[in-house]
Amino acid sequence: MSADCIFCKIIAGELPCVKVYEDDDVVAFMDIGPVVKGHTLVVPRTHHENIMTAPAAVLKKVIAVVQKIAQAQENGLKADGVNITQANGKIAGQVVPHIHFHVIPRFTNDGHSWNFPQKKYEGGDEIEKFAQAIRKGMGGGLAQ
Amino acid sequence: MSADCIFCKIIAGELPCVKVYEDDDVVAFMDIGPVVKGHTLVVPRTHHENIMTAPAAVLKKVIAVVQKIAQAQENGLKADGVNITQANGKIAGQVVPHIHFHVIPRFTNDGHSWNFPQKKYEGGDEIEKFAQAIRKGMGGGLAQ
Repeated sequence: MSADCIFCKIIAGELPCVKVYEDDDVVAFMDIGPVVKGHTLVVPRTHHENIMTAPAAVLKKVIAVVQKIAQAQENGLKADGVNITQANGKIAGQVVPHIHFHVIPRFTNDGHSWNFPQKKYEGGDEIEKFAQAIRKGMGGGLAQ
Repeated sequence: MSADCIFCKIIAGELPCVKVYEDDDVVAFMDIGPVVKGHTLVVPRTHHENIMTAPAAVLKKVIAVVQKIAQAQENGLKADGVNITQANGKIAGQVVPHIHFHVIPRFTNDGHSWNFPQKKYEGGDEIEKFAQAIRKGMGGGLAQ
């Protein structure tokens, strides 16, 4: 538990939340500022700042609960679709530094749209240069 | 493999891509229409339309690779942050019906911002009603 973490306090019961699911490793509760009503947060009980530092074993437990919540939004809220989003770092929009997945139900005519402007790479090998940098960031080479 | 699926064709080598990672279960390649340059897609080799229908075991393999790519974008591209997004259903913005996770590097002054308008629940028990519907969609009751 991290002393100043609002999500750690929620998980510990020191702050209130409207919970929809919990098990030994993961808790899911309602976001009080929903992008679309029904918006749920899924968090591990253990404190990890983001996807860079959370153990893969924790991420695997969390994604299984993300799926349960998405299915439950479809079944229980009759959602027409679901968005999963997850932000790492302030520039990415992360506000609470305890890794969390947003599970956001979508409905026909819900009035929401993401800003998802797709750009283009310049000609030549620009895309390959980005790919090379990513491969290098994984330790070099294309894993087989 | 689904005959008409563009991602199945990419995975099978029938369509080109700029690959950054692959293993027995998961492939990661560059999105040719990047929201921010470096934007990478992570997909399972097996065809599942979305997070509702993909086996949890597949999701666990995929999320482990999502993490590797996020770390590689931080290490290799010197990204200041990373967004993970995943869309289920046309209303959610899903274009290709083969489950995929977007891993999008973020940089100070990259000029991008998501549309993430947080609404409020009405007074009384509106938030609780949404929570109840989600719990019911999971089979009822709060899992312990």
